[in-house]
Amino acid sequence: METLSENKCFGGTQGVYKHSSEATKTDMTFGLFLPAEAADGPVPVLWYLSGLTCTHENAMVKAGAQGWAAEQGIALVFPDTSPRGAAVADDPGYDLGQGAGFYVNATQDPWAPHFQMWDYVAEELPRLITRNFAVDEERQSITGHSMGGHGALTMAMGLKGRFKSVSAFAPIANPTAGDWGRKQLNAYLGPDEAAWARHDATLMMAQNGLDIPLLVDQGTADDFIDLLMPEALFAAAAQARVDGHLRLQKGYDHSYFFVSSFMEDHIGFHAEALYA
Amino acid sequence: METLSENKCFGGTQGVYKHSSEATKTDMTFGLFLPAEAADGPVPVLWYLSGLTCTHENAMVKAGAQGWAAEQGIALVFPDTSPRGAAVADDPGYDLGQGAGFYVNATQDPWAPHFQMWDYVAEELPRLITRNFAVDEERQSITGHSMGGHGALTMAMGLKGRFKSVSAFAPIANPTAGDWGRKQLNAYLGPDEAAWARHDATLMMAQNGLDIPLLVDQGTADDFIDLLMPEALFAAAAQARVDGHLRLQKGYDHSYFFVSSFMEDHIGFHAEALYA
Repeated sequence: METLSENKCFGGTQGVYKHSSEATKTDMTFGLFLPAEAADGPVPVLWYLSGLTCTHENAMVKAGAQGWAAEQGIALVFPDTSPRGAAVADDPGYDLGQGAGFYVNATQDPWAPHFQMWDYVAEELPRLITRNFAVDEERQSITGHSMGGHGALTMAMGLKGRFKSVSAFAPIANPTAGDWGRKQLNAYLGPDEAAWARHDATLMMAQNGLDIPLLVDQGTADDFIDLLMPEALFAAAAQARVDGHLRLQKGYDHSYFFVSSFMEDHIGFHAEALYA
Repeated sequence: METLSENKCFGGTQGVYKHSSEATKTDMTFGLFLPAEAADGPVPVLWYLSGLTCTHENAMVKAGAQGWAAEQGIALVFPDTSPRGAAVADDPGYDLGQGAGFYVNATQDPWAPHFQMWDYVAEELPRLITRNFAVDEERQSITGHSMGGHGALTMAMGLKGRFKSVSAFAPIANPTAGDWGRKQLNAYLGPDEAAWARHDATLMMAQNGLDIPLLVDQGTADDFIDLLMPEALFAAAAQARVDGHLRLQKGYDHSYFFVSSFMEDHIGFHAEALYA
């Protein structure tokens, strides 16, 4: 593992690291914020999964998360959104291929050799981080934005017992039913929709509910709201009688100005679960 | 108007008053909390509509609302849930007739002569209160529990421009679709379901949305949740892109122990709108 940068930040350290990934068979870069408390021993961790077109860097510089994480003594991990490089398949669209891994393990060519983002984020990166940094694997929570909100929700439901809480900012809530999802699930997983269901937060919620606290924020002025379909997830969460706060934030759009506006609430929400 | 009682309460006054109602053609009793600030001039007001079997008294003694209202300088009105008396029609069921007015104007016998609760709560009582007490008719918000949550939501959507904000605790969210609603709407309004639609929060939300902030709390251990149908309202609110916080509160039931647990949040929410 190579250290690309380390900056002092809110009394802790914002680092960027590169390593050779077994899951994606590429180099992968990630951001990690460690609060000052990590000097004294393992701290709880909040995973932040990013959206389409993002790298490990967007949220790290635009979400305003480190200050609140420092206040709560929580580490933040910012993974990349896909494998990258000249040897990695890509697509001219911004919403498929590099920068658009959708947090699945691709089974279809040309994607299958490198696009193994579920395994990378769910298995390999947690192992790497808990072995190399003062991060407590027993106290993990997860959040994300847009495609990353989809990733956070599906991992929280798919990896039962892993996370203490889950939140999402404007998640792709029902990808099997919309254009942000059908195209990608078809490309990565093939045309058999049975394989898609475990990557759809609304379907997973309807089938198995969720046994950890949930917070979702969705801006009402989000230009992509018809693709995100919060109404499907809200109905499924209510029907499943989960512990959930589902918020429509009037006038907010899909940008990091929206994400940063509610970051304090999300980190406070996760802190409550991580320190319970 | 007759003063039945006045008690000093959190620096203000909790009063109970009786008057002869034109709308219901009966005597009606209501509770009114005035904070200390009312001595200096009109204060904002929060209407609290109660649920099945309740009188003006239940929320007044069990909701724990006065302390938070005093802190915010807000008046509280607690209307009764129906006309009452030997001359008023009734039904053996707890969910029809006296104590179960459903906040509609009945058009069907034997209910029509007295069960005019929409007009009573929406027109007559506001006039009476703003004329006789230091309550500001330009700053009104509304909340309620169960049948009263239904009343609060339908009045907020039906009386555009009247209220600054609306909230509900475990509202009957989609009464045209469930047993808490179909029986009563049929009895009070007759079998033509077209007349029911303007007394169903989910249908109103789907048709016209809502232009004021909304807060809903629903306990997940509520024994009546299948009758309340929060999932229908949550989906409609998300689809309508309203300013709404929709919360599922894990383990809470339908009681005033649930209502009182979240009263601080609701009064804080309304205060923000009333003082904006």
